[in-house]
Amino acid sequence: MAYELYYWDGLQGRGEFVRLALEEAQAPYVDVARGEKKEGLGIGAMMGELESDDPYPPFAPPFLKDGDLIVPQTANILFYLGPKLKLAPRDEDQRIVANGLQLTIADLVTEAHDTHHPIASGLYYEDQKDAAKARSADFIAHRIPKFMRYFERVLAQNPDGPRQMVGNALTYVDLSMFQIVEGLRYAFPKATKHFADHYPHVVALHDAVAKRPNIAAYLASERRLPFNDTGIFRHYPELDRAVR
Amino acid sequence: MAYELYYWDGLQGRGEFVRLALEEAQAPYVDVARGEKKEGLGIGAMMGELESDDPYPPFAPPFLKDGDLIVPQTANILFYLGPKLKLAPRDEDQRIVANGLQLTIADLVTEAHDTHHPIASGLYYEDQKDAAKARSADFIAHRIPKFMRYFERVLAQNPDGPRQMVGNALTYVDLSMFQIVEGLRYAFPKATKHFADHYPHVVALHDAVAKRPNIAAYLASERRLPFNDTGIFRHYPELDRAVR
Repeated sequence: MAYELYYWDGLQGRGEFVRLALEEAQAPYVDVARGEKKEGLGIGAMMGELESDDPYPPFAPPFLKDGDLIVPQTANILFYLGPKLKLAPRDEDQRIVANGLQLTIADLVTEAHDTHHPIASGLYYEDQKDAAKARSADFIAHRIPKFMRYFERVLAQNPDGPRQMVGNALTYVDLSMFQIVEGLRYAFPKATKHFADHYPHVVALHDAVAKRPNIAAYLASERRLPFNDTGIFRHYPELDRAVR
Repeated sequence: MAYELYYWDGLQGRGEFVRLALEEAQAPYVDVARGEKKEGLGIGAMMGELESDDPYPPFAPPFLKDGDLIVPQTANILFYLGPKLKLAPRDEDQRIVANGLQLTIADLVTEAHDTHHPIASGLYYEDQKDAAKARSADFIAHRIPKFMRYFERVLAQNPDGPRQMVGNALTYVDLSMFQIVEGLRYAFPKATKHFADHYPHVVALHDAVAKRPNIAAYLASERRLPFNDTGIFRHYPELDRAVR
């Protein structure tokens, strides 16, 4: 049976980390909220799950349905899917390592979101622009380097080599690394201009993922939504600034 | 061998969610950064692990060491420890449910932190007070109710009854629920004054956890640090406001 992915239509957002794993593995899935109402899909189907009085409802999208089981939270979905898609380490301890890395990626994603919404996710960007400028300046000066230096270190210190984050084979963590480099470059083209000089292993990993046949096919397809100003990574030129 | 917990000394912070699980289970553990330098403990020991060139270093505290394995990220530590401490569901699917709930608690914890640090965690509160007031107002008006209504719903919709978040027995998620109620009440006494009326199952769970013998003994011990203005949950009266 196909996996059912539930996420907002019209943006990559957090759902994209799950899509990349499903696409790499060529797993059958339905992107529920992007489907047709007449087929029982669409946003209404997603809202029905969110408001259901079934046990253990999800708090927010993305969530995955696999049969009767509802799996909420991006990192949890990937932890659950990883072994089934052969995108997790075989070793149990390394799966815990992968989960820790994915949660650190999730922290970066939240901080990237909060650069444009530092006061309230329910308010417009225009109503929190001054705070967004201040938060973005700190994000560019301190947080991007802290996270990226760390990921570079993880790759450099991997005993199996710097071509993947954990162990000796591709995992969902590597796919997510591709997405954060892609997202940061879209949102902050000036600040990320010299990424390849500062974080060579990270950028090499990004490039290698982009060339994988299933990922390349996905990125060229209509299933891959473009970045835009409703997602996590948004390009507001006034928030970007050059970094040496 | 005792578990080694690594977290900043002097505050409850994210480490507290792990301490509550270890204390409930009466598991042997060393709170490394709070130990004596002459015993090889203290902040230096923690910094050594953070800066190590070993494989898979942690990004930030808290992290746990169990033998050679380093487990970073609060929710990941609890997911790892849960079965060993008999504080996780036996059923594999329910463990995924528990992890999803814990990650939603983690999101609330991050938002609670950002009420006093909406611009930059590296700046003083006093330097971001106006933004903190705006973010706290939104947190109180919209985010606390959204999270708490959700947790109340999870308890009400648990097929095994509203005395625990998942399944029919105490898990680490319940201990974390105690901590967020405790923390929100400390930080926002006015905003949380009517919690028991609005979220009766949540408050009943909080009260039941507080009465558990191992938790009560821990809370009365010197190992339980008081809330203060260096942790996640901080009481700044100017950020609090009454809610009916």
